[in-house]
Amino acid sequence: MDFKEYITIVPDYPKEGIRFKDITTLMENGAAYKKAIDEMANFAKDKQIDVVVGPEARGFVVGCPISYALEIGFVPVRKAGKLPREVLKVEYGLEYGKDVLTIHKDAIKPGQRVLIADDLLATGGTIEATVKMVEELGGIVAGIVFMIELDYLDGRQKLSKYEIFSLTQYS
Amino acid sequence: MDFKEYITIVPDYPKEGIRFKDITTLMENGAAYKKAIDEMANFAKDKQIDVVVGPEARGFVVGCPISYALEIGFVPVRKAGKLPREVLKVEYGLEYGKDVLTIHKDAIKPGQRVLIADDLLATGGTIEATVKMVEELGGIVAGIVFMIELDYLDGRQKLSKYEIFSLTQYS
Repeated sequence: MDFKEYITIVPDYPKEGIRFKDITTLMENGAAYKKAIDEMANFAKDKQIDVVVGPEARGFVVGCPISYALEIGFVPVRKAGKLPREVLKVEYGLEYGKDVLTIHKDAIKPGQRVLIADDLLATGGTIEATVKMVEELGGIVAGIVFMIELDYLDGRQKLSKYEIFSLTQYS
Repeated sequence: MDFKEYITIVPDYPKEGIRFKDITTLMENGAAYKKAIDEMANFAKDKQIDVVVGPEARGFVVGCPISYALEIGFVPVRKAGKLPREVLKVEYGLEYGKDVLTIHKDAIKPGQRVLIADDLLATGGTIEATVKMVEELGGIVAGIVFMIELDYLDGRQKLSKYEIFSLTQYS
């Protein structure tokens, strides 16, 4: 299946010159969405994954059905103030300024094998912060999956220690 | 399965006197999360559902795996400024002030049968706004599912025209 046929390119969004990749049209197609999840789950299935971790909100649309398909748990990574119990916080750089991601401290047990899932690998900042939190809690990042990888932003370099699977790549 | 065993009550969150129901501990348990999704999908399966709709971000953790289980599409409802193409907007009341939800105008086709999914039925404001958007686009709300229903807030009254399934109820 050529997943790019289901992803919509939105020109000049969120600002001029950016060709935004919109995955909502892929998700609206039940067959394409299921096949996308199955391919990512298939990459993960011989890696003895214990739990899937995904950052809000688009990491949920990728990670939650993967966790269902693999019959394992899902751990959300959220913006500050969204998780109700004791959290670990990590700051990460955005284009302008900084933001904070959080994870429940008891969500990952030491030694657990983790699959990280998100929609998009761009510069890799969000995923780098997510990896840092998982490892600080003693988890082992056994794989990282994306629906889309933007080759030209070199996010993969930041994550060169890890096994990465991208459903689609854009140059 | 008694799903309440997997939901954590967090006292005094987000403010004093509130007993917050935390579903992350349910989601972290692969068997409990899968069974929860399967029960909601089972409620929907004889309703000829065409598509699942869920509001961000916790509606994604419920709706996306249901759409995978039913092999149908998922349509996200998001806060303002998050969807890249032409949207329908609906204002809805919060405890203090108002907020806006959006949906892509082309996401629902007239006559499509829709399952709405979210984590929590409290006063029902978010879901009422979601129903309004689905119906304005010509969709038919064929069912609504929640992981948690807070009986004492009477959200069900606002949605009395619709078939509702809640995995757990708190009085």
